Amino acid sequence: MNYQWFTSPATEFYPLPDPLNLELGGSLAEVRVAYRTWGQLNPEGDNVILVCHALTGSADADDWWEPLFGLDRALDPSRHFIICSNILGSCYGTTGPVTPNPATGRVYGAEFPAITIRDMVQAQAHLVTALGIRRLQLVIGGSLGGMQVLEWALLYPERVAALAVIAASGRHSDWCIGLSEAQRQAIYTDPHWQGGYYTPDQVPAQGLAVARMIAMSTYRSHLSFQTRFGRERQAEGWFAVEHYLRHQGEKLVSRFDANTYVTLTKAMDRHDVACGRGDYEAVLAGIAQPTLIIAIDSDLLYPPSEQQELANWMPNAELAWIKSPHGHDAFLIEMAVLNDLVVAFQHPTHSRPVLSN
Amino acid sequence: MNYQWFTSPATEFYPLPDPLNLELGGSLAEVRVAYRTWGQLNPEGDNVILVCHALTGSADADDWWEPLFGLDRALDPSRHFIICSNILGSCYGTTGPVTPNPATGRVYGAEFPAITIRDMVQAQAHLVTALGIRRLQLVIGGSLGGMQVLEWALLYPERVAALAVIAASGRHSDWCIGLSEAQRQAIYTDPHWQGGYYTPDQVPAQGLAVARMIAMSTYRSHLSFQTRFGRERQAEGWFAVEHYLRHQGEKLVSRFDANTYVTLTKAMDRHDVACGRGDYEAVLAGIAQPTLIIAIDSDLLYPPSEQQELANWMPNAELAWIKSPHGHDAFLIEMAVLNDLVVAFQHPTHSRPVLSN
Repeated sequence: MNYQWFTSPATEFYPLPDPLNLELGGSLAEVRVAYRTWGQLNPEGDNVILVCHALTGSADADDWWEPLFGLDRALDPSRHFIICSNILGSCYGTTGPVTPNPATGRVYGAEFPAITIRDMVQAQAHLVTALGIRRLQLVIGGSLGGMQVLEWALLYPERVAALAVIAASGRHSDWCIGLSEAQRQAIYTDPHWQGGYYTPDQVPAQGLAVARMIAMSTYRSHLSFQTRFGRERQAEGWFAVEHYLRHQGEKLVSRFDANTYVTLTKAMDRHDVACGRGDYEAVLAGIAQPTLIIAIDSDLLYPPSEQQELANWMPNAELAWIKSPHGHDAFLIEMAVLNDLVVAFQHPTHSRPVLSN
Repeated sequence: MNYQWFTSPATEFYPLPDPLNLELGGSLAEVRVAYRTWGQLNPEGDNVILVCHALTGSADADDWWEPLFGLDRALDPSRHFIICSNILGSCYGTTGPVTPNPATGRVYGAEFPAITIRDMVQAQAHLVTALGIRRLQLVIGGSLGGMQVLEWALLYPERVAALAVIAASGRHSDWCIGLSEAQRQAIYTDPHWQGGYYTPDQVPAQGLAVARMIAMSTYRSHLSFQTRFGRERQAEGWFAVEHYLRHQGEKLVSRFDANTYVTLTKAMDRHDVACGRGDYEAVLAGIAQPTLIIAIDSDLLYPPSEQQELANWMPNAELAWIKSPHGHDAFLIEMAVLNDLVVAFQHPTHSRPVLSN
């Protein structure tokens, strides 16, 4: 397995000079962070936006959040210096289970250590420092990306001017943990899993595909599927929705790794801003930055009650809504609305229109 | 595998005298229906209630719907003659994949034919006829049971006086189909699945357990899990919700069969009252019986919009609500409320109180 395989040609790499100490113990030597940037750092150094990606995302924010990029948009390379790095533990260029362990020369695989959202943010912070940036104008992300945004505010409050947290929670719910564990168990059921000690030519493809099928269902909604498929059948007799989900499963297998999936979903399950910091509400109350919280009305995984909770306790937070039938995935679908909300937050005195380019 | 293994001692068996012709083609010889009854048929023959069970249920309605049984309750053996039969394709005594195929002497297993909800109802109708019953005062069921209730009204309109449909739909949604297919694929991922040709000593236990973990998550809700588990951890470090779901998976494996699970979930996916009958709304409009439709406000699998649809189109339907945080499973949890709603429907002129016994 080649750990540069999945990165786009524009990707740059930052090798951490020192081992990365991990929240749950131990450390990782020779960590490398894959990242991309757009635009230029201005002389004042106050035009930086850090984009945090979700579970199976990469540093290529201009790909998965393309409509947010452009003149006068939320991510405008003519005005902003935009950074997106692949998260620790992922398989898109940053050190993770598919990376060779420098101590053995073999990929970490099942032996990659347990990590947390805080470890991901710590690795990003080293990159940001190395880029000569003292302060981030905005840290923005959806889902797992939103969890990183909250941890940025808590780990490095003086380095973050404003936050945008989309479709995320302050602590991973039992509901999400349960659905994640069902997905991991689907992976473990695959005979090729081998306790995580699989080889590149025999990966637990079917188990990972099933995990993705479960996930994709929960990323959407009853209405979203009904509108799209309407009990239609394929020529072979399968329901269109079955075909769609199996296809989504196969697609993920072609671009993702099972140990990585297990590592990252477990990190998400550990997400709890209060962990080791005291009372949950008090921890949220300590986040003083202006914050945009965006809720998706049909989100089943991170329902609006979770964003309302954040907005209630964070003293400078405003809650905005994406009304959509598409569930959690609306943060990757309803991008014109999302862009408008972020632009209005960036320029509170006047809402800018979304320009066609 | 012994196909009488799972039945309670009180179970009776009705062997169909003729082969059962199946909706999708073919027929099943020597079908046997396992059933239980409570109370006595009155001389007028107008006190019969037929209870239809859900996916992994059995004829033991007094077990899984115990609080609905009793003096002055919805199912009152002192007044009603109550029948519940195990559905065709199940593993609780009625002919299904775990039954020996009389043509070969070996259990059907993967060769059990594709069946539909209508086939299940047809088998029940033969039993009801054999019991000397011409007309059912009430047919009642939740989830898959509710689908059977609708098919009873459409296949045998003259034999059904009233209906109670709980947390079910007129046609299985793409959402439900997608989640069912994810569960089946989890079973197929188990190396012991063997295309359904597994042996009793080596069953696809892990795959079936994962299917159940997915299902149990979708039977409940975000709030239900949060209230119950609150991110609590076990001594071994697992989240309590993970432990709970794995335990639920193991429990199902000890009492259910994988080919049966696949057979029944596929039958559910085929559920569409309009299939072969014309326009969906017109088919529902043709159900003239007084009908109680019960919706659960937190049901993610069969959301209230589906019961509202039924109530809108069925001319004599009334819609009632179970308000509960527990999602779809509320029809097996909020049984005092459910009982009250059914009793009020049975006696529209005066709501009877729920007595403590």
